[in-house]
Amino acid sequence: MFKTIEWKKDKVVLLDQTRLPEQEVYVECREVSELADCIRRLVIRGAPAIGVAAAMGIALGAGKIKTGDVRKFRSEVEKICTMLAATRPTAVNLFWSIDRMKKVVDVYAGMGIEVVKERLKKEALKIYREDIEINREMGKQGRELIRDGARILTHCNAGALATAGYGTALGVIRAAKGEGKKIEVFACETRPVLQGSRLTAWELKKSRIKVTVLTDGAAAFLMQKKMVDLVITGADRIAANGDSANKIGTYALAISAGAHGIPFYIAAPLSTIDVRIRSGKEIPIELRSGEEVTHIQGKRFVPQGIKAWNPAFDVTPAEYITAIITEKGIVKKPYLRNIQKIMKS
Amino acid sequence: MFKTIEWKKDKVVLLDQTRLPEQEVYVECREVSELADCIRRLVIRGAPAIGVAAAMGIALGAGKIKTGDVRKFRSEVEKICTMLAATRPTAVNLFWSIDRMKKVVDVYAGMGIEVVKERLKKEALKIYREDIEINREMGKQGRELIRDGARILTHCNAGALATAGYGTALGVIRAAKGEGKKIEVFACETRPVLQGSRLTAWELKKSRIKVTVLTDGAAAFLMQKKMVDLVITGADRIAANGDSANKIGTYALAISAGAHGIPFYIAAPLSTIDVRIRSGKEIPIELRSGEEVTHIQGKRFVPQGIKAWNPAFDVTPAEYITAIITEKGIVKKPYLRNIQKIMKS
Repeated sequence: MFKTIEWKKDKVVLLDQTRLPEQEVYVECREVSELADCIRRLVIRGAPAIGVAAAMGIALGAGKIKTGDVRKFRSEVEKICTMLAATRPTAVNLFWSIDRMKKVVDVYAGMGIEVVKERLKKEALKIYREDIEINREMGKQGRELIRDGARILTHCNAGALATAGYGTALGVIRAAKGEGKKIEVFACETRPVLQGSRLTAWELKKSRIKVTVLTDGAAAFLMQKKMVDLVITGADRIAANGDSANKIGTYALAISAGAHGIPFYIAAPLSTIDVRIRSGKEIPIELRSGEEVTHIQGKRFVPQGIKAWNPAFDVTPAEYITAIITEKGIVKKPYLRNIQKIMKS
Repeated sequence: MFKTIEWKKDKVVLLDQTRLPEQEVYVECREVSELADCIRRLVIRGAPAIGVAAAMGIALGAGKIKTGDVRKFRSEVEKICTMLAATRPTAVNLFWSIDRMKKVVDVYAGMGIEVVKERLKKEALKIYREDIEINREMGKQGRELIRDGARILTHCNAGALATAGYGTALGVIRAAKGEGKKIEVFACETRPVLQGSRLTAWELKKSRIKVTVLTDGAAAFLMQKKMVDLVITGADRIAANGDSANKIGTYALAISAGAHGIPFYIAAPLSTIDVRIRSGKEIPIELRSGEEVTHIQGKRFVPQGIKAWNPAFDVTPAEYITAIITEKGIVKKPYLRNIQKIMKS
């Protein structure tokens, strides 16, 4: 099996997701700036995986700071955090993870720089291990929603590749499969970066789960033809009212699922819920380069001079979401109250 | 300006749409089998253009039949019609055009083979010229639906490239622009064949109409962000009740438009209406090779062994369609009655 991200002595190793499924190549980051670049270039992507990568990046970067002065050390760590926070704006797990690492600095700074460096490494590894555990727990919570023989539509990649391992949406599917249920997955290709056709198909093939790829525009017709029973996706940030940001195209699937009476589920860890944000309107949406749309493999498909609009995410209003699957249980409407409740549990 | 299709002495010349926007190359068909192959390979596509191509194909093929025996001649023409009818199943204009050409054979067969050959050429050219006229008329009928400053979303290519010239959906946009209205177009890229980003963007750029490309999955988010005022697409076949088949992805746009209270219009000639078909359920939907989805420019993006589901069209139920713009006027609900009325007008 592959490892999406791994901490090795003095370096962070990433499976290069820009080159899948053709090549299974690992990238070694010895500097935090390299890791930040990998996050920006989508070498590693997926909200939980970005969170883990940021934590490891801080541990890596902090470990290389050469100073005996605590104040200077803290200021250098702060710079690393600022750099990592600037890589991608939408997934809240990134900021959640950075905050958690900063707290380690606060708590252990009085014990000296070497102690802080050691504790940062431990915390990064803890975030990594916890993420896998959380995904498995999410799978256990969510698998009851999937009946034997279910045909499931998913979007983008919310699998082992988007997390430390196992996956959120695909984790729930894995857990249902693990109970002996027969499962069939339909993966939207997910333009422009094709995480569905490249990554989800690759990962499910490795796990021997039947998968068929389709264009994003074909999903509504799949529903009309009664070829799909439910939709599950991940999320990059969930507001206090349940509005959820996820890969561009998710909102269209949620509207179509609603129109066909098909349940639309989100699977995400509590770290993806941003209770400071009241509604989806406040979620910052990353606009990526139009070249992701105009070019494929370096070849330009759109005439010269014509621009593309390329938001990386969209926001699905809570009303379209049947339930949110978390590691602590399945959250249903009314989301404002029930999200508060589960965050306190 | 370009010519989508042109009759030249003893050959039919097509602008090769598989190579746009990179190259503006024309393909010369001297045999009807070559033309049939071009229709299959999407060198020429779009319901009205396919209708014109079939008519010219019959004229071309009939002109080359070497026999003095009328019965044998008619049987050869019949074979040509059968071959052309088998190229693509969804667009009804193909069958409408073949039927019209067959009637010419019926009417003139008594006057000898040479007369029939001449009349078939004349009829093909008439269908060609009529198509341009019909598109211009459709534009005049539909332009009132577009206000000054309108931001219009379209899907696939329903322009000059999809017709003998001018276009259906894009024809309405041209007509509104011709009245001096300021127009901005958003073109869904239209996976898998990218007719939106390759063809619509190319054609609108030539006509100096502002166009921005987006992925099909981003359209619902564009609507949520109030960046679009109306949607117009073409159609490949419209049933008696108004259900409309069009390029895959259209149905998702119609559902999203409905959810956002944005009008969803179809622009199509009466020849696209198939009154023999009661509802969209009876419209045959072409399933094309999964390779259109799994491969881009010959490069495979989906892991080996994983299949793609690739319907070329979907069916939008009439309830989602605000109005159908035809050359005889704008048809609104109830469609069953109002379509009957306009077909008789």
